[in-house]
Amino acid sequence: MILTVTLNTALDLTYGVPELVPHASHRVSDMSERPGGKGLNVARVLSALGHETAVTGFAGGSTGTVLRELLAGPPQDADTKTGNGATPAAAPITDALVTVAGNTRRTIAVVDRATGDTTQLNEPGPLVTADEWTALLGRYEELLTAADAVALCGSLPPGIHVGAYAELVRLARTAGVPVLLDTSGEPLRRGIAARPDLIKPNADELAQLTGSREPLRATRDARRRGAHGVVASLGPDGMLAVTPDGVWQASPPAKVLGNPTGAGDSAVAGLLSGLVEGLSWPDRLRRAVALSTATVLSPTAGDFDRAAYEELLPRVGIEEHTTAA
Amino acid sequence: MILTVTLNTALDLTYGVPELVPHASHRVSDMSERPGGKGLNVARVLSALGHETAVTGFAGGSTGTVLRELLAGPPQDADTKTGNGATPAAAPITDALVTVAGNTRRTIAVVDRATGDTTQLNEPGPLVTADEWTALLGRYEELLTAADAVALCGSLPPGIHVGAYAELVRLARTAGVPVLLDTSGEPLRRGIAARPDLIKPNADELAQLTGSREPLRATRDARRRGAHGVVASLGPDGMLAVTPDGVWQASPPAKVLGNPTGAGDSAVAGLLSGLVEGLSWPDRLRRAVALSTATVLSPTAGDFDRAAYEELLPRVGIEEHTTAA
Repeated sequence: MILTVTLNTALDLTYGVPELVPHASHRVSDMSERPGGKGLNVARVLSALGHETAVTGFAGGSTGTVLRELLAGPPQDADTKTGNGATPAAAPITDALVTVAGNTRRTIAVVDRATGDTTQLNEPGPLVTADEWTALLGRYEELLTAADAVALCGSLPPGIHVGAYAELVRLARTAGVPVLLDTSGEPLRRGIAARPDLIKPNADELAQLTGSREPLRATRDARRRGAHGVVASLGPDGMLAVTPDGVWQASPPAKVLGNPTGAGDSAVAGLLSGLVEGLSWPDRLRRAVALSTATVLSPTAGDFDRAAYEELLPRVGIEEHTTAA
Repeated sequence: MILTVTLNTALDLTYGVPELVPHASHRVSDMSERPGGKGLNVARVLSALGHETAVTGFAGGSTGTVLRELLAGPPQDADTKTGNGATPAAAPITDALVTVAGNTRRTIAVVDRATGDTTQLNEPGPLVTADEWTALLGRYEELLTAADAVALCGSLPPGIHVGAYAELVRLARTAGVPVLLDTSGEPLRRGIAARPDLIKPNADELAQLTGSREPLRATRDARRRGAHGVVASLGPDGMLAVTPDGVWQASPPAKVLGNPTGAGDSAVAGLLSGLVEGLSWPDRLRRAVALSTATVLSPTAGDFDRAAYEELLPRVGIEEHTTAA
């Protein structure tokens, strides 16, 4: 089982409007509602790839109830996009979320159907109490006993201490479970010092962490701060991996247009599933780049265009750097 | 008891953002959630004025549950705005909503805290079935037996026939209960033909109905179509009443700046409470104008600034037209 942790889960609403005009009134022409927060997106992609997955983190209030109902609902539509019968069935996602007193936040993506541009509104998360955090730690340690790998994903809700991810990284390492950390800012800085197996910063997160916008320099610097491996996601330029086994650059075969929301989460799912399946670094990177590119082609986070994924996978370019990591 | 009918109830969310920038991501800095739809706003103002009120209409799904919990919750904050102890306690609002299978819609008002401007996003309402409409009719007829007056408010959800308000007007008239209709478009056109006691169109609704933007001409035309009385709300110009007893123009003492959302609903509450209390037309109009002006000064629909209301009430200008209605 692969475990994902989402401390700041969300109910993600997408509202389509014919055109977004500030200070005007809009009738929403189409809408969708789905469980969100980075770790839940990662879990959905892992599930579509056939991996049994468990999700933990916090959920509460009426919004938390809706989120959990949707999580327990029918399989995601990523699978329905394929034209042939060759796709694996979606594996179950186990709901191991910890119930909190506060109300889970909503995020609203307002999509201008004229231009495709998205305006994002994110509610603040609920205040998590010390007792709720203790309950999460207990649940997490229990889940680690059955986990092949764990991903720690996204921002921290109010009330959670900034070293929370460092604590979760240490517990995973103590339990001998490979741990990937995907967050930003101070929680990332502290988390790296606890020596996670892998981090997956994007260019902005990397620059914020290291002060450098030169990819190779920044990625190496991030690794020196404690992460065993660093895979930097560089948007349309693909990914740069600096690992104990070598340095690779992976590039998508072509630029694609679409919605980049969730592309990073799909990359995490690609890296984590590749790790659990024992794939080589080049193959993990191929999968991560193909999945994240196929996610850009899909309208919603946590979904990917499976036909595009299968078509892209053998065409991802991999270049090994011969200099030392 | 005063009854209000809201066929298209909503959970009204207000999101404050430091500045609304299209196509950017925003952290919501403050938020509130309250039962909405015109009839619920009217009921809240009636309750704050000390009138016992019942609300019916449709509510369903998880959003409907939240709406009903909030409706049953502590009294509204309109009362907390007063500095003295002279305000009447809020009277109870009886929840007589009919449960439907569909999910009650949300509306989101995104308030730019830099400018105060509001961008509105309205979900479509749930599809109401024929059986659910029949259940509403039964509940409505039952409630009419105890009602001193009824207000029919707002838009129709999908599935409800365009003559629905006409049907509800006829049932109220058969029961001998004074009925105020506050809607727009074709439902208003059909509803007027069923001869409601009062309609309260704004300038746009009046122009859409009659083709005229000349207030007196349009208001008289609206009355000829079947309404016994017409009170046109003309925004900062106040209200124009064309009734069997005479024609009056009521004007606020000064222009005010603020959020006009809910001002029309407060005017309905003013007219309806004045009718039930047996006030003269000039006194009803004074109350309606003072209440709607005091609502512009309050940040949320269904609330009014009570101190401003009490200060404005004696200062509303009333002019009687001596020509025939």
